[in-house]
Amino acid sequence: MSKFGMYAKFTAKPGQRDALAAILLESAAAAEAVDECELYIINISDTEPDILWVTEVWSSPEDHAASLTLEDTQAAIRRAMPLIAGVESTKIKPVGGKGLLFS
Amino acid sequence: MSKFGMYAKFTAKPGQRDALAAILLESAAAAEAVDECELYIINISDTEPDILWVTEVWSSPEDHAASLTLEDTQAAIRRAMPLIAGVESTKIKPVGGKGLLFS
Repeated sequence: MSKFGMYAKFTAKPGQRDALAAILLESAAAAEAVDECELYIINISDTEPDILWVTEVWSSPEDHAASLTLEDTQAAIRRAMPLIAGVESTKIKPVGGKGLLFS
Repeated sequence: MSKFGMYAKFTAKPGQRDALAAILLESAAAAEAVDECELYIINISDTEPDILWVTEVWSSPEDHAASLTLEDTQAAIRRAMPLIAGVESTKIKPVGGKGLLFS
């Protein structure tokens, strides 16, 4: 089973980065209970004040897709949407390295 | 102390992705002994066959900079350079989430 990874670049509307980060951090806290969510890290940028990056790794593409259907996730998306000016995601496939378990 | 994160996008020369991945995976194995290297994950792309992404997180920018001066790292860079057509890196600052310890 191959892991699913993603770098999600959120552009917050002016002045909304921290409010958006707070919602994403809540999602990360909720993900603590979801074993298939192996990484969900919120990052800021030192050079782009309106940008947030989320580094995600899921145990499979199916696990990631399933997470998007959860009511908690849907509620967080509804709260976050008004704060977001744009989203770009880069999908990747983790194949090895330090910090995750690879079978 | 703030963590240091980076998404490094390597474009391998044609046919060299797997050889480059092998060198990066060796670097990740070596990083197992370096506590300040918290994440070093090698990723492939399902849509770009010559691309490798490395997700890195270090305990501080200084720890990352220090790692680049190590002889092991320098030797790996020398071995990898002939296989690389380009490198682009996005520097980020992890602020919270699942998968890393945040003080």
